[in-house]
Amino acid sequence: MLLRQVPGLATAVAQFHRYRLTAAVCRGSPFRPLGSRQSSSTSAANAMAAISTDAPIEADTYHMGPGTLRISRKVLHGKLRARLLERLQAALPEEKRGLVLLEGGKETHLYSSDGEPLFRQESYMHYLFGVQECDWLGALCVKTGCSLLFMPRLPESYAVWMGRLKGPEEFKAKYGVDAVHYVDEMPDVIRGMAPPCLHVLHGVNTDSGLTVSPPQSPAENIPLETGTLYDIITECRVIKIPEEIEIIRYANVIGSAGHIAAMRSAKPGVMEYCVESAFLHHCYTAGGCRSPMFTPIAASGTNAAILHYGHAGAPNDRQTGPGELLLLDAGCEYYVYGSDITTTWPVGGKFTPQQRVVYEAVLAAQRDVERAMKPGVAWTDMHALAYRRILEGLLAAGVVGGGSVEELLEADIGGLFMPHGLGHFLGLNTHDVGGYPPGSPARSSRPGFRSLRTSRVLQPGMVITVEPGCYFNPALLMPALQDPVKSKYLVRDAVLSYMAVGGVRLEDNVVVTESGIERLTQVPRSPEEVEAVMAGADWP
Amino acid sequence: MLLRQVPGLATAVAQFHRYRLTAAVCRGSPFRPLGSRQSSSTSAANAMAAISTDAPIEADTYHMGPGTLRISRKVLHGKLRARLLERLQAALPEEKRGLVLLEGGKETHLYSSDGEPLFRQESYMHYLFGVQECDWLGALCVKTGCSLLFMPRLPESYAVWMGRLKGPEEFKAKYGVDAVHYVDEMPDVIRGMAPPCLHVLHGVNTDSGLTVSPPQSPAENIPLETGTLYDIITECRVIKIPEEIEIIRYANVIGSAGHIAAMRSAKPGVMEYCVESAFLHHCYTAGGCRSPMFTPIAASGTNAAILHYGHAGAPNDRQTGPGELLLLDAGCEYYVYGSDITTTWPVGGKFTPQQRVVYEAVLAAQRDVERAMKPGVAWTDMHALAYRRILEGLLAAGVVGGGSVEELLEADIGGLFMPHGLGHFLGLNTHDVGGYPPGSPARSSRPGFRSLRTSRVLQPGMVITVEPGCYFNPALLMPALQDPVKSKYLVRDAVLSYMAVGGVRLEDNVVVTESGIERLTQVPRSPEEVEAVMAGADWP
Repeated sequence: MLLRQVPGLATAVAQFHRYRLTAAVCRGSPFRPLGSRQSSSTSAANAMAAISTDAPIEADTYHMGPGTLRISRKVLHGKLRARLLERLQAALPEEKRGLVLLEGGKETHLYSSDGEPLFRQESYMHYLFGVQECDWLGALCVKTGCSLLFMPRLPESYAVWMGRLKGPEEFKAKYGVDAVHYVDEMPDVIRGMAPPCLHVLHGVNTDSGLTVSPPQSPAENIPLETGTLYDIITECRVIKIPEEIEIIRYANVIGSAGHIAAMRSAKPGVMEYCVESAFLHHCYTAGGCRSPMFTPIAASGTNAAILHYGHAGAPNDRQTGPGELLLLDAGCEYYVYGSDITTTWPVGGKFTPQQRVVYEAVLAAQRDVERAMKPGVAWTDMHALAYRRILEGLLAAGVVGGGSVEELLEADIGGLFMPHGLGHFLGLNTHDVGGYPPGSPARSSRPGFRSLRTSRVLQPGMVITVEPGCYFNPALLMPALQDPVKSKYLVRDAVLSYMAVGGVRLEDNVVVTESGIERLTQVPRSPEEVEAVMAGADWP
Repeated sequence: MLLRQVPGLATAVAQFHRYRLTAAVCRGSPFRPLGSRQSSSTSAANAMAAISTDAPIEADTYHMGPGTLRISRKVLHGKLRARLLERLQAALPEEKRGLVLLEGGKETHLYSSDGEPLFRQESYMHYLFGVQECDWLGALCVKTGCSLLFMPRLPESYAVWMGRLKGPEEFKAKYGVDAVHYVDEMPDVIRGMAPPCLHVLHGVNTDSGLTVSPPQSPAENIPLETGTLYDIITECRVIKIPEEIEIIRYANVIGSAGHIAAMRSAKPGVMEYCVESAFLHHCYTAGGCRSPMFTPIAASGTNAAILHYGHAGAPNDRQTGPGELLLLDAGCEYYVYGSDITTTWPVGGKFTPQQRVVYEAVLAAQRDVERAMKPGVAWTDMHALAYRRILEGLLAAGVVGGGSVEELLEADIGGLFMPHGLGHFLGLNTHDVGGYPPGSPARSSRPGFRSLRTSRVLQPGMVITVEPGCYFNPALLMPALQDPVKSKYLVRDAVLSYMAVGGVRLEDNVVVTESGIERLTQVPRSPEEVEAVMAGADWP
């Protein structure tokens, strides 16, 4: 079984059991207050003890109650700041070492109303400081390593609406930094430190094309320096530290179980959104994950071929029919880090022969890519490998033809069935940063390859999704059937008869290790496992 | 029982049964596809038939599948446009009748990433046109009544990601307007209509203080007219038409059942967010309500005194203790209209004597306000009535004293226990517009009264929340205990001993009728009902 062949997997499975059991304790059993002693000797109880829910909770701890992951903010963000500092010091001569200044996310309103969407911190700000509140700024002295936060000064009257107002000392303990000041004190504090410059973010996000613009200098005469920070901190974000991986692993444990809950909630006739809701409810109730990592896609039948289904104009509002596949692409967020998992399964519990052909082709792609991944391997080669396996499957089933797999690959037939990239970095954003840094291989212009969110060579610590897919997308295949070159490789009647399958995507989150990968996602993958779980079998 | 004394309540109860039963059919029973014939003669089946799930679904229908509310966009928004038109025509001489131009909400990103938060239409745009997609504009000719929409022209390649691209004709059928054009055609289309001006929104939201700014004129030489539209359309939004009330009623039926689900999910030790999740899951799965109307507040113990608890800095992450109250303030959204309901109940299923004192004072306020409400009644008087009932309760329990209720009211002691307004308009926003239009009574400066979101006199068709509360808020009461005047009316030891109660808020949504109100919210309210439901009794 592949399960045993992936390095690091034993750890992941152990983690899965650990969180799953503790979550079950949290959810289903009588109340056991935080801080009470554990007397039971069951494995669930032991697992509970393993994540030390009985230990005192420090002010700086991320946690959402019994059974949920605990991580020290001070350790996590302290390590991240230390690594950034090291790299900035290496890049900057001593006289040019200033103060990193990050501006956190601001309060927003629902248009002109006083509705306030739930605040979600800007990712770079969260990365260095973990601040949960809006309208803060953070600073890091490149010379001394001193970390500072600047909080808004709220009027005393806010206490009525927002609860007791915490002061700088209390937030200092929560965020584990060297000092917390009010934003209105920032100009004086910064002038007092007399840095030669303020290192601020300035760069382009290679997924959105949006520019990260620097803030205004809060202290006159201290210049902004825009050439250093963005590339260095972005590169730091690409290579995760163990604490970051631990959170993403947790979001995978919870998200994987959310997929199982969603699968078990489904039967033919279910509305797509009910499946989405089952996922969300599990992740929140059992894992403390309040927000999805992105708007979930719960696409049944031919909707599965629509890569960004689920948006406001197509809000998972179709009723599934018997015999259809449902593609669920959903992940959850735990303190801004998250998972991004896709499962595809028959709502009726049994794959049809055609569905199985497509499913197995995609699964072969995923398995072989995961087997081949290790440091030094180019992601573009993995994308090509996925195309190879998918086309082999389709060739064997008579959906494509007219040439060898080599010829099909050469003719870019892979991109007709999987127009998206094989996967993307994952972390504080679903499509995490750093895919095309300066000096990395340029973006390809070939179909499919040009959609890759990175063309980089794998390195240990990269967390990346492996999400091959095979879709019967009319927008791509109907023109191709008319195209004199492409149509040579398509078996027209077979392609048309497969249209009802819609599509299959299987998405794992993995972390690259020294020798291969650790797969963080733990969902049933083989058709037999999927059918068994949907019939009620235990998982894992 | 109060239940029978509120005009219109029988309708609401019937509706409640109708939706609840059909939702149960949708959720729990074997699949019955849309369009299949109903043969069962059970009451559930009859209820199902009553909302005609078997009828053909028109392209313009709002619906989220079996058991959910169906409303024709063309009827709803057509009526709203017709009423606006009538009022604009009455306000504008013929030569000044131009084209109303509304700009819909735009696509947004999660900071610089390519993450796209789920799109939610701007409320005025939704009000007139019901468009679910981003980056549209809408127009309404004040002379002819002609309604137009302008949609973004997406590249053909988007079909791969977004699904088959719908064209103007398809959207015309969906939105029931006279014509749909592409945004790039708008200047020509508008110039061709040669309106004397473009009536655009320009005004200040009286809850947020934010200015609604007009868009740029899309056609040179056609001036923007900013003085008419905002006040008139805002006033239209205050008085709901039956179709709007029907959606808000539905959001109340689903939201009320969501509160019941939340109550039943709770036991001492539950995390606050698990209660929130139970609410959200019910509303989505059983009602097709994807989004909460606002970030839910699930506040246990002393957190209940924090009026805006639940935000990102205090994310419902406390573990409840035995003997505590939980205050759940949560509503759901159905096609942008929504509910806003608060229940407060003991997580252990039984009120303590102190909790009951506070609860009954608040309940008396709510009941008497609802009994007194009818057209012509000033909302400020209702606020004062709520204070009177709450203070009577606290006086009888010995929490306040040193004078008569009249004297306590005169000394603004009410505002120490309920610093917020009694209620607010509800519709397309939680705090719906129109609270302080030109010419309405000015905002009071008195404690409590100054927080009222409207000071208006009630009129039929207003949908408003009735949400008295009584809180033991240290930020207000501790200074008051030191205050030489206010402390005269506070029984120090009693106030301190009630601090652990936290607070109680009971929030109903009601519509003002010709003779009184119809209560849309149907949740257990008497302490006996609450305890019975938490012990598993049927509801309603």
